[in-house]
Amino acid sequence: MDTADIRPLIERLESCAASLYRKDFLLTWEQPATDLHAVLLAAEALEHLWRANISTCVFDSGLAVSNFRDKSTRTRFSFASAASMLGLSAQDLDESKSQIAHGETVRETANMISFLTEVIGIRDDLFLGEGHKYMAEVAAAVEEGHREGVLPSRPAVINLQSDQDHPTQTLADLLHLQKTFGSLEALPGRKIAMTWAYSPSYGKPLSVAQGIITLMTRFGMNVVLAHPEGYDVIPELEQLAAQHAEESGGSFTKTQSMEQAFQDAEVVYPKSWAPYKIMAQRTALLRGGEAKKLKELERECLADNARHKDWECNDRLMSLTNRDASRGMSEAHYMHPLPADITDVNCDAGEVAANVFERHRLATYHEAEHKPYIIAAMILLTRCERPARVLTDLLDKSTPRRLG
Amino acid sequence: MDTADIRPLIERLESCAASLYRKDFLLTWEQPATDLHAVLLAAEALEHLWRANISTCVFDSGLAVSNFRDKSTRTRFSFASAASMLGLSAQDLDESKSQIAHGETVRETANMISFLTEVIGIRDDLFLGEGHKYMAEVAAAVEEGHREGVLPSRPAVINLQSDQDHPTQTLADLLHLQKTFGSLEALPGRKIAMTWAYSPSYGKPLSVAQGIITLMTRFGMNVVLAHPEGYDVIPELEQLAAQHAEESGGSFTKTQSMEQAFQDAEVVYPKSWAPYKIMAQRTALLRGGEAKKLKELERECLADNARHKDWECNDRLMSLTNRDASRGMSEAHYMHPLPADITDVNCDAGEVAANVFERHRLATYHEAEHKPYIIAAMILLTRCERPARVLTDLLDKSTPRRLG
Amino acid sequence: MDTADIRPLIERLESCAASLYRKDFLLTWEQPATDLHAVLLAAEALEHLWRANISTCVFDSGLAVSNFRDKSTRTRFSFASAASMLGLSAQDLDESKSQIAHGETVRETANMISFLTEVIGIRDDLFLGEGHKYMAEVAAAVEEGHREGVLPSRPAVINLQSDQDHPTQTLADLLHLQKTFGSLEALPGRKIAMTWAYSPSYGKPLSVAQGIITLMTRFGMNVVLAHPEGYDVIPELEQLAAQHAEESGGSFTKTQSMEQAFQDAEVVYPKSWAPYKIMAQRTALLRGGEAKKLKELERECLADNARHKDWECNDRLMSLTNRDASRGMSEAHYMHPLPADITDVNCDAGEVAANVFERHRLATYHEAEHKPYIIAAMILLTRCERPARVLTDLLDKSTPRRLG
Repeated sequence: MDTADIRPLIERLESCAASLYRKDFLLTWEQPATDLHAVLLAAEALEHLWRANISTCVFDSGLAVSNFRDKSTRTRFSFASAASMLGLSAQDLDESKSQIAHGETVRETANMISFLTEVIGIRDDLFLGEGHKYMAEVAAAVEEGHREGVLPSRPAVINLQSDQDHPTQTLADLLHLQKTFGSLEALPGRKIAMTWAYSPSYGKPLSVAQGIITLMTRFGMNVVLAHPEGYDVIPELEQLAAQHAEESGGSFTKTQSMEQAFQDAEVVYPKSWAPYKIMAQRTALLRGGEAKKLKELERECLADNARHKDWECNDRLMSLTNRDASRGMSEAHYMHPLPADITDVNCDAGEVAANVFERHRLATYHEAEHKPYIIAAMILLTRCERPARVLTDLLDKSTPRRLG
Repeated sequence: MDTADIRPLIERLESCAASLYRKDFLLTWEQPATDLHAVLLAAEALEHLWRANISTCVFDSGLAVSNFRDKSTRTRFSFASAASMLGLSAQDLDESKSQIAHGETVRETANMISFLTEVIGIRDDLFLGEGHKYMAEVAAAVEEGHREGVLPSRPAVINLQSDQDHPTQTLADLLHLQKTFGSLEALPGRKIAMTWAYSPSYGKPLSVAQGIITLMTRFGMNVVLAHPEGYDVIPELEQLAAQHAEESGGSFTKTQSMEQAFQDAEVVYPKSWAPYKIMAQRTALLRGGEAKKLKELERECLADNARHKDWECNDRLMSLTNRDASRGMSEAHYMHPLPADITDVNCDAGEVAANVFERHRLATYHEAEHKPYIIAAMILLTRCERPARVLTDLLDKSTPRRLG
Repeated sequence: MDTADIRPLIERLESCAASLYRKDFLLTWEQPATDLHAVLLAAEALEHLWRANISTCVFDSGLAVSNFRDKSTRTRFSFASAASMLGLSAQDLDESKSQIAHGETVRETANMISFLTEVIGIRDDLFLGEGHKYMAEVAAAVEEGHREGVLPSRPAVINLQSDQDHPTQTLADLLHLQKTFGSLEALPGRKIAMTWAYSPSYGKPLSVAQGIITLMTRFGMNVVLAHPEGYDVIPELEQLAAQHAEESGGSFTKTQSMEQAFQDAEVVYPKSWAPYKIMAQRTALLRGGEAKKLKELERECLADNARHKDWECNDRLMSLTNRDASRGMSEAHYMHPLPADITDVNCDAGEVAANVFERHRLATYHEAEHKPYIIAAMILLTRCERPARVLTDLLDKSTPRRLG
């Protein structure tokens, strides 16, 4: 790995005027474009430093707290990796091992875990209307704690997937697209199909679809959102995607045909999610403690799903895509946050046919590879006043990360 | 944060003649006053260093093992924070993931987890007569292991709450009182009311009440212990509190009236605990495996509790307290280890009224804030032969903890 | 601890021509003798450095991932200790907190947890025919990931106990024998009895017995494997032990008499395991999801076990052993990976009588003590191209691990 590639990245970061210092990263659409560019540049620089065996330790101690309210492998390890590469100690807040009450005490817990904490990463994606609210509540609590002198510094709250957005995934996706097509400037005018796909499971979050349509429209792409009737995402976020497209010169369209979405697409992103209305009902039933009705809702939802087993990314659909996509592909680039439900591999019928997935498998690993660096970049930018200076110092010193 | 404040603290620590090196910290009353002063001074110095962004890494590797036999958020994160700030790797001994047998093998497990371990923090507060015994057994085992050459060094055992004492809490409380009133010398003659309060929960440990009455009497305070009939604490510890008061010129009195305790108090500490006799019965039933009788005991105990819902810290009681307490308060300082049972917030009737708690909420956060540094100070003093020298070195070097 | 002992170890390591760089450590019999010597030498050097308070940090960040598919205390803490001493962040892959699918996706998970990972330690010992297969699958997956540019470097997979071998235990045992008898050269011709012993538990892995008979035969020992009829180990591994003995000039014999095994032995290793055939049936039933038959099999197996309660290491048996064994023992050295089932201590009838265990208790702690350094040595040798150079650098710098 040539370290000569790193200085230009840092110089561009320097000129980014990022506004993330002492802030949180909860929703991409709350951040100006300069912040998104800064995250991508810092992530690339950190990845180059790591691959060149140069120490990336920005901290010599301090906690990186994670709070997973849903299961996670990839994001858990990405967060722990980001913590380690920056020199922080990862510490998981396992709510089953702590007696965390509801209501008023979120703000208390937020402060109690933050005395020596630099970042709090939260996954809370199970219930519409809940996840983002919880993250914002934690952020407000540590803001107050710092203002009142309780906390020596103000930990950043980072969204590791909420009911609304999944920024560490979608920015890793954006970095993947940048690398796939050569630059961010190469994205405008390219068609990306964000489509629903069948999965035998229930209650998958909507955040990836919402995150992709709102983010990629900012970069001039022609974004198509496809799903069967009833599988809408949050309406306000569709409107936001349309607005972004208008501003960037891209487009945002909707269809109920997977074929239409795939037609001439250069990128396809077939992924299951739960219907918005079901998710909304679910939250209401959950709040009311209606266990029996929740079970019925699940049955109903799975039955609904089963009527759309034809929403599978397979050869027939891929043959409709743009065969001139860059880098010698004879079909569109396939994206997925993983794990995918692969027909005949880990389920009888799923989001993608085995042969299609296999052709793109290593590409999905590359897509995933960026996530630790994206998270580390978010920590660097929210916690360090002069991130470009910090990266320059690391590069100048070039302390080997591994001896021998 | 001005680093000029740090050297005087270190100088005073230097002159403390602390005797903690290669020892444990299990019960405050086992330690001479010089050790307690040393813990407070080292904690303050560490907090100043942290707030001044100066590296506090005393170790470059090694384990800090925690063993929580009861749920914990605050103490878990305080311990992990203390480990991180000193450069140790926190590692939790989760007994559900390990097959730890009872009896003889405690001493074996203690050694097996200690080959590269600097400190073992233990919470074991559920059963009277058990927690302290377990900690002492672990301490004896690592003492033997070190003497016999099995362990390269002798890890310190630190009590993170036992059936008897909760020293990391009460020393953080003492530091809070020191800061509240300006100095330890300002404490003698001030009245502190350690009183029982109603809570809808069952089986809360007695250790905070026991720790407060035995510790604050050593610093010349006028300590009042208040509780309904039957909610006694361990009799020997009441006697010890009386003896401490006699030695220090303070006082130790008892009452069954919350009003009387609050009358003219400058500090109130209303907190629920289980009656001593019930806790003793509970241990006996548990050892006998009497699940049904344990359930009955719990019912009985909760019914007993419910007869004392009037033991709530509210405006009426606070109005009885000393209105001239320092720092411009118009009522006594309120203390609690958190989380508190707050009426109409996280329960229907609890230890404290919502408006009283809200007035003192940030003060309780400040009280909690000291705990990571108290634990770190205990590790420093038990593991380093010349702790003042170590702190001086850290200050002289002033390596930034966080870059940029 | 005199650091003068360290340079000769490093010099011998230098001349070892170890072939572990960028490899895994799964089975001792796959590694040439030079690799085994290298592991022992590096472990000794690391232990000396640690005991001399010299920093052993080879990495300044990066993950050490553990994946325990069976309960563990000793190995879990040994792995975490090894990670910490080298500067890595230990991160456990808890499959209950992640949605890990079966089949095809092992290779995916392996990559997803490895982006910044130096080592993956796996315990998978519950099912014959499964554990080693799983580890090999993980190793192949990260090999592919690295080859394809997904992973910046190739994490080593280390076997923390499989259905076949338990190399971190048996190499720690070998180091213990080396220290007990003075050198590896002192081992040829000494008799070691690897014998089954009664335990009230069910389904214990065969890996220690298999690991010991295949490893100690390579070092010229006279290995006797003893067990009741039906408690065979994997036949291929018995054949391998015989072949090793032939090559080294040692011997490998079998007996169904514990007495015969103990006769004149200098080392006895009495330890329970499940019969090979039962374990094979168990895997088949498990794959078939036959919960009821599994329960029956367990009952049957425990009843079988109970017919062999006389297979207990007690005074009578110890009196048959070699009374001239070195270091002033009046009986054979006793070994056990711990925890042992000790009669009248943690069970009514077990592997060893309480008085025999007590005489050897501290020796078993010393045996266990080596494991963290063995694991650290495996990481060093698999991850660093010039491990001897790395150790020399650490010694030359002699940065104190702990201040003060």
